[in-house]
This record gives sequence, C-alpha cells and structure tokens, in this order.
Amino acid sequence: MKNCLIAQSGGPTVAINASLSGVIRGAMASDQIDRIYGGRNGIQGILEERLLLLNPIFENHEENLVKLEHTPAMYLGSCRYKMKDYKEDSTDYDKLCALFEKYEIGFFFYIGGNDSMDTVAKLSVYTREQGLDVKVIGIPKTIDNDLTMIDHTPGFGSAAKFISTAMLEMAHDTYIYNIDTVLIVEIMGRNAGWLTAAASLARNEYSEAPHLIYLPEVAFDKEAFVAKLRELLKKKHHILVAVSEGIKDADGNYLSAQGGKVDQFGHVMLSGTGEVLKGIVQEEIGCKVRSVELNVLQRAAAHMASAADIAESIRLGENGVRLANEGRTGVMSTLIRVSDEPYEVRYDEGDIAQIANQEKKIPREWITQDGSDVTEEMERYLRPLIQGEHLASYENGMPQFLFAPEE
Amino acid sequence: MKNCLIAQSGGPTVAINASLSGVIRGAMASDQIDRIYGGRNGIQGILEERLLLLNPIFENHEENLVKLEHTPAMYLGSCRYKMKDYKEDSTDYDKLCALFEKYEIGFFFYIGGNDSMDTVAKLSVYTREQGLDVKVIGIPKTIDNDLTMIDHTPGFGSAAKFISTAMLEMAHDTYIYNIDTVLIVEIMGRNAGWLTAAASLARNEYSEAPHLIYLPEVAFDKEAFVAKLRELLKKKHHILVAVSEGIKDADGNYLSAQGGKVDQFGHVMLSGTGEVLKGIVQEEIGCKVRSVELNVLQRAAAHMASAADIAESIRLGENGVRLANEGRTGVMSTLIRVSDEPYEVRYDEGDIAQIANQEKKIPREWITQDGSDVTEEMERYLRPLIQGEHLASYENGMPQFLFAPEE
Repeated sequence: MKNCLIAQSGGPTVAINASLSGVIRGAMASDQIDRIYGGRNGIQGILEERLLLLNPIFENHEENLVKLEHTPAMYLGSCRYKMKDYKEDSTDYDKLCALFEKYEIGFFFYIGGNDSMDTVAKLSVYTREQGLDVKVIGIPKTIDNDLTMIDHTPGFGSAAKFISTAMLEMAHDTYIYNIDTVLIVEIMGRNAGWLTAAASLARNEYSEAPHLIYLPEVAFDKEAFVAKLRELLKKKHHILVAVSEGIKDADGNYLSAQGGKVDQFGHVMLSGTGEVLKGIVQEEIGCKVRSVELNVLQRAAAHMASAADIAESIRLGENGVRLANEGRTGVMSTLIRVSDEPYEVRYDEGDIAQIANQEKKIPREWITQDGSDVTEEMERYLRPLIQGEHLASYENGMPQFLFAPEE
Repeated sequence: MKNCLIAQSGGPTVAINASLSGVIRGAMASDQIDRIYGGRNGIQGILEERLLLLNPIFENHEENLVKLEHTPAMYLGSCRYKMKDYKEDSTDYDKLCALFEKYEIGFFFYIGGNDSMDTVAKLSVYTREQGLDVKVIGIPKTIDNDLTMIDHTPGFGSAAKFISTAMLEMAHDTYIYNIDTVLIVEIMGRNAGWLTAAASLARNEYSEAPHLIYLPEVAFDKEAFVAKLRELLKKKHHILVAVSEGIKDADGNYLSAQGGKVDQFGHVMLSGTGEVLKGIVQEEIGCKVRSVELNVLQRAAAHMASAADIAESIRLGENGVRLANEGRTGVMSTLIRVSDEPYEVRYDEGDIAQIANQEKKIPREWITQDGSDVTEEMERYLRPLIQGEHLASYENGMPQFLFAPEE
C-alpha cells in the first residue's frame, strides 16, 4: 500500500471538484492506496509542502463528497506555475521526488488543462528516469473544451448550460420592447469558440437567438457583420449576437485591441470585444444596442451545472485511479463518444505527450460558410453535454458548498 | 359581468409574469369578470388596440399558468411611455376610455414600477371624473425595491437571490489563487442600494465576501476606500467589493461619469462604476484586480428565482383582483410584513397617489457608520426574501418558458 496525492491547477470550472471527488472515491475503493493527500494551490503549494490529509474529511462522509461535487472552482486551490524543463533546471523535480518519498506517494493525480498536462508529462518522464515508482496521471478539466484526445472536457458542459440558459433568458429580456435592439453577448474563448457556439443551444420553437455567432476560428469581417445586421433588422426588431472574446480580423489582430480607448491619464486601454462590436453598431446602425460580458459566472455558476457534465467528471476521476492502479503513468483519463443518440461514452486513456500544450479548435465544417453561425452537426455534438440539472442543496436560501479547512 | 384588461410596463424582472398569472387566476375565479384581455407592450400597445384574449390560453390550462410563472421578463411585452397630464392633453385618456367602452372593460390591472403607478394614478382619476365605471388597479414590480407603501417589491427577492448566489460562487472563484486579488462586482441600482445590499446574504461561516459594500445612499470617499482596502489586504489575500452602479462622490457626481475614457474618435465615454473602482485599485494598490458587471442577468435569471418572491408575486396579482371586485380604484396591491421570524406578510392596498413617482431608499441606520457595509437589521430584512428555489421544468437541457403567440 502506498499513499496518493491529488492537486488542482489552472483556471476554475464548476466540475473540477467533481473530478476531485471521483479521484477520492476511486482512491478510497482501491486496495493499493492508503492515505489520500491533497496538495494546496497545485504544484506550487506541493513544493511548499502544503498538504492536507483528506481521509478524515471524506471517509465515511458521503455528505461531504456530495457537497464537494456541487462546489465551484477548486477545493484545494490552484496555481499558475509552469515547470521548467528538468534538463535545464531539475530543482523543482528533485524537491517533488523527495516529497513523494517522504510521504510515500505512489500515485499523483493532477487535475488541470493544457498547461497542467505539460506538468504531468514532464513529471512522469522524470520520475521514471529516476527509477521512482510513482504513477503520474492527468485528469482533464477546462471550460474551453480545447483539449485533444478527449471528446469534450469536464466543466465545458456546465458552462455551456449556463451560457445557453442565460442567452434564452436575455432573449426574453430583449424581446419586451417594440423597438430595434441589438444585444451583444461576449463569451469566453481566446482561441477556440466552443463556449460561444454553445449559445446556439438557446434556440427553440419561438426564439432564434442568438441570431449571429462569431468565433475565433473564422476571421471577423466588419462590413459583412454590418450588412448582415441591416438585413436582419428589416425582418425583426431584436437581434442577439454571441461573440467570442478572441475574434480577430483578417490580419489576425484581436478586435478587443481595436477599441483604442484612452483613459483620463492618456493610457490606452483594451476594450472588451463586445464593447467594440457595440461601438460598430452605434456608428453604423444607430439603433439601441447593449453589450453584456458573461464574465466569471461562465466558469463559476455551479447553480447551473449540467448533471451529465458532473457525472462524467466524477467518472473521469475514478477512471484515473483505475489507470494508475493498472500501472499506467504519463497518461490522461479521457472519454470517447460512442454515439450521439442515445448518447453514450466510454472511458479510456490518452498519451499525455499528445495532449500537453495542444489546442483543439472547432472544425471549419461545423461553422457556416459565411462564418456567422454554426451548423447542425455542432448542435448534435453539444446537446448531450447540457442534459440534466445538478442541483445543490440550499439552506436559508443559499446553496451549500464545501470549503477546505484553514491551514 | 364585465371584462378585464391586464398590461405590463417598465423594466423586466423574473416575477412580473407571476403577478400576471396571479391576476389571471384571480380573474378566472371572479364572478364579476368575463373575458380577460392582455394589452401588448403596455399602455402604448393598448392605445394601438393591440389586445390578446387570454382565456383560451390559460383557462383549463394550468400547465401554461405554471410555465408563465417561471418565465422571465414580460409575456405581454413592455413599454416606456409616460402619459401626459390630462389637463394639458387628454387625447390618450379619451382613446383609452373609448377602448374600455368598446371592449366592455370594467377592470384594468397595470403591472409596473414607479412610472407605471403614475399612469394608474392619472387614469383612475380621469375615468372617475368621466363617470366611467372602470376599476384601475396597480400591481407592483421592480427589482430595485424602491416603491413606497410596500414592504418589498416583487422581483426584488429573486434578483437578490441571484446576486447573493453569484457573489458566493465568484468568491469561490477568487479564493483559488494564493495572491492578493480584488474583485469588484457592479450591481444595479441608480439611486437605491437595495440590490447591492443583498450581496451581503452571500456571507457564511467560511466566507466574508463581500468584504466591502458601497451604496448610492452614502457619498463615496475614494481615500477611505483605498485606506480600507490596504488595511484588509494586510489580513487577507482576497477582497470582494459589491458596488451600486449609482454611487456618487461628496459633490453628488456619479463615479461612472468620472472614468473619462475617450474612444478612438475622441468621444468621451461613460465608464461603468466597477471599471472606475478597478482603475483606482490599479493606480493606488497595484494588485490583481477585476471588475464584473452582473448586468441584465440580475433581472432575467429566472433559473435562480426565489420561491418566496414568486409566491408573493402571484398573491399580489390575486389581491389586486380582490381589491377591484370590492370596488376599489386608484390603489396598488401591497404587502405588509407582520413579522421577520417566523416570516409573515399580509396583503393590503396602498393609495396610488402616495406611491407614484416616489422612491424608497435604504434607511441610513441600516448602513454602517463609515458607509462601507450594511448592518444586521438589513440582513434580517433581506433573508426571508430569498427563501426557496422556484425551479422551472427542463426539456432537453433547457428551461421551459412561455412565449406569447405572434400578432
């Protein structure tokens, strides 16, 4: 029997704690794992030996695991820390290996996105080279859905559910006045447009919102946007636009860099992409226009979590423990879609070297020819990911989340 | 038997359709009311004779009433239309009276805020003076909670529940990194700080967020704000600030007017209040800082509706029908709080002349001496209003709302 160590890294989602719960569930059920340590603030906190013993909190406390699965962001805290190449500087690696020996760690699970998988890749090679018997496993997460080797990423489905629900609610909000109105909704996604594409799920039999969708995968053409808006406004009063924060023009420049605002001290300030489009509508169309940034709620709105997403996130954690127990190292727990209808996935593993630092973008054929919408294939891909509502329990009007004990 | 007419006006909330449902339920149960007409786009649409017969949609269709109670914004549409004083120009009034006669309207229910109550006041006097037997009743709504003669307004509790939940979720999102961070959350409220005060409900045994609360009722002191932040950052890494969009400095100038940004064409642009505070933190403190505007979701997030709010909104609609049937006119349906614990209200009426164009602000004694927080009395007042979750039914991952048939 050896002990295991789990940590979380990168930007938050509402499903990362579900993956943590999955790893804990898997570790508690494993006859190869004894103590379960959590590393605070990712690899950075581990290097500072800031560990938290998780057994007393979760063993025989199913209610805490359930609460954890409802809690947004990272129970163990996070970091943004890029490990150097050990060939240049192995200080951090040696420190980690010493800690692994001190705490008798045989299994290390790192829950994170592209950057974190880079850490997993380097560490798995180093421990192997050092002859240290530590299984290093990556557990995926990112609202951006841009990891390769996995059908979709944990956290994405819940963000998609929040975005599509917010879009429909904002459509109702926009439709009430009988005057021409453009609402621009800026959605996260610097290089990949998956989250923005998810706004399309808001469409139903009475509402076509969002009427236009702009993604970073296709160059943004201002003239075409204005022409499209003019055409749409001839037929209807209300146009909702979903736009990725990361759209660029044909020269590859971010739209957000073109707001060109100057503050009172003369500093040039980057404007939001939504604000830039709003400015275009004001200049070129002149109708009522508002821009809304969904902002951090996209990745924090646990109250809108997708049941499908949370269930899969737990399973991906458990699958990671299975992989480790079967002797794998340097791999990421993955899921492969078996079919769309009925929706079915199977759990697998992916070679970490092919995942680290890679980015999965939307296939061009899932975006319409003119680049202002997504196709039906996109909806077929997205729809299963927002199924079911994962509702927290409430006390005194507020959702009940779990918070780690103070150090 | 006479017919009734219902319309909705002003800005949206998630509870206005619940009040509409309450009026419809009351009207269907009344032996004085035959046909139930809805006026589209408030008084403006009524003047254009754009009426929708509601009986076929809702009679024997309880499922549609329930769906309506879950639907945000206005099922009948809204308007921003200020009736002139009839002593100056009675054209609109005469047109309305003619329509009332044509459609045999004996009861008119107008669901709205301060401005709409002004319409109710004028119209009730005019119909009386003309000897027309039409009972004109106001049904309150506004997320701002700034109507007088009523303990709190329908729609406010749901907005408060969304704001406090979002605040707690954003706190979890902020706590993950081990570095000094200030998160500024800009909340609606131009003149009254009720919504911003509701952020205080996010506090629990492990989280003090929001650490600072700034309201329009107290002049904002930049130096005191910076000093307070410096002091707090000595003790903790993460400070969350809730701020009303409408805060002003000691000279009465809106903070939002002081961003002084200039766009690329040289136009001065009004900045959000949150962005202005963010700029102050950047200049004076220099730590990581982000500002988030909750924006339209505050009034549109039906998925976070408070069950207490929706139930009361329905009752206020039904109570309006009762008042009309008892012969009242020129009154607003109100609720009076009988006790905090156990929370109890009774339904009553308020003289519309004392409500129209009035604004209820936060009592000074519910704000701390230094103006950076609210007191316990505030929490006692607010807490009952966010109790219970009013969950829509979902199909295919999306909430099911009701949409009015096309004209």
